[in-house]
Amino acid sequence: MKIPVVKQILSANDAVADRNRQTLAVAGIFGLNLMASPGAGKTSLIMATLDRLGDLRPGVIEGDLAASIDADKIAARGVPVVQINTGGGCHLDAPMIQSALADLPLAEIDLLFVENVGNLVCPAEFALGTARNVVVASVPEGSDKPYKYPGMFAAAQAVVLNKADMIDVFEFDVDYFRRGLEMVNPGVPLFILSCKTGAGMDGWMNWVQIERG
Amino acid sequence: MKIPVVKQILSANDAVADRNRQTLAVAGIFGLNLMASPGAGKTSLIMATLDRLGDLRPGVIEGDLAASIDADKIAARGVPVVQINTGGGCHLDAPMIQSALADLPLAEIDLLFVENVGNLVCPAEFALGTARNVVVASVPEGSDKPYKYPGMFAAAQAVVLNKADMIDVFEFDVDYFRRGLEMVNPGVPLFILSCKTGAGMDGWMNWVQIERG
Repeated sequence: MKIPVVKQILSANDAVADRNRQTLAVAGIFGLNLMASPGAGKTSLIMATLDRLGDLRPGVIEGDLAASIDADKIAARGVPVVQINTGGGCHLDAPMIQSALADLPLAEIDLLFVENVGNLVCPAEFALGTARNVVVASVPEGSDKPYKYPGMFAAAQAVVLNKADMIDVFEFDVDYFRRGLEMVNPGVPLFILSCKTGAGMDGWMNWVQIERG
Repeated sequence: MKIPVVKQILSANDAVADRNRQTLAVAGIFGLNLMASPGAGKTSLIMATLDRLGDLRPGVIEGDLAASIDADKIAARGVPVVQINTGGGCHLDAPMIQSALADLPLAEIDLLFVENVGNLVCPAEFALGTARNVVVASVPEGSDKPYKYPGMFAAAQAVVLNKADMIDVFEFDVDYFRRGLEMVNPGVPLFILSCKTGAGMDGWMNWVQIERG
């Protein structure tokens, strides 16, 4: 007899993800699941987006193995934030989000950022119930990442290439990156930007507004 | 009744890691398990080390989810290399190394680099049978990584901080990084270097030679 353990775990996660999706829909919250390598700039993208939100009211769920460094930065801005420490776990899952949602003032949030654990592999396999998956790549990582981590880039509804102010310094091959991305996820929107300088943030902000509907 | 599935998997891995350790010892090979975020510079460190090996004969095992981009670079140097594609798996394990060792000319190798999957979480939990774990961090990732990924940095016998030529550009706080590292892994040697410029490579090469014995 074959025991499909992995399938059962994933199904359980998906069931909770569906409930999260419903919770967010009822509350009128548009949720973004931000996934990236460590240090690609997930928190920087959240901070730069917060600066440009206008009337939209934000909320944040921060996922980390340990510590609350990023959550502290967000909280200092007066934005509602919940820290999830996975205690070594390599990804967020739907039950963690379900718990975090219970601790957020949902009626006061329009746009929810979920910052996943820094990991370009495992988070892609766990639905959280957010509306969109966003993968944040960054220039110093190199232009071959879509080829090497196809599962993550295939799971994205949008890709951000951050630290674009460093394209010349790192001799980053944008065309090679774009071809790799197109290979694993044809047509996915790509936003080349710098959270530091603000260059390219407009296109990203437009996408957020339009997708939110 | 409690079924300790995870424990059994780890034990099975450890048993194979022990056999790998023996295989390498018998062949007189010193093995390094290189772990890092995607794009931190594992392949660059291997290439820069190859340039400085002198009489030591190298071999390489390349771990990736997909593709053989790095293995192609190594092979172009005439160095024996085996590519492991995990097919989505987030880390290398001891049985993968066992298979790869069977495909390498062990009698012609003194120093074996194992380039793990780019992931600052999962690889730390799987012993491969190599002599030393080396964690490669890089400046653009930011100085908070030891605090956020303590398990990985705690598992290291040496830490390399690569892309040191970018310390000023990224306003990288070396002292904060060092304090975090010291917190999770007191006394672990840290090599601050740039594979690109070669600065700091001497200290790393000395460590490799001394540890090899």
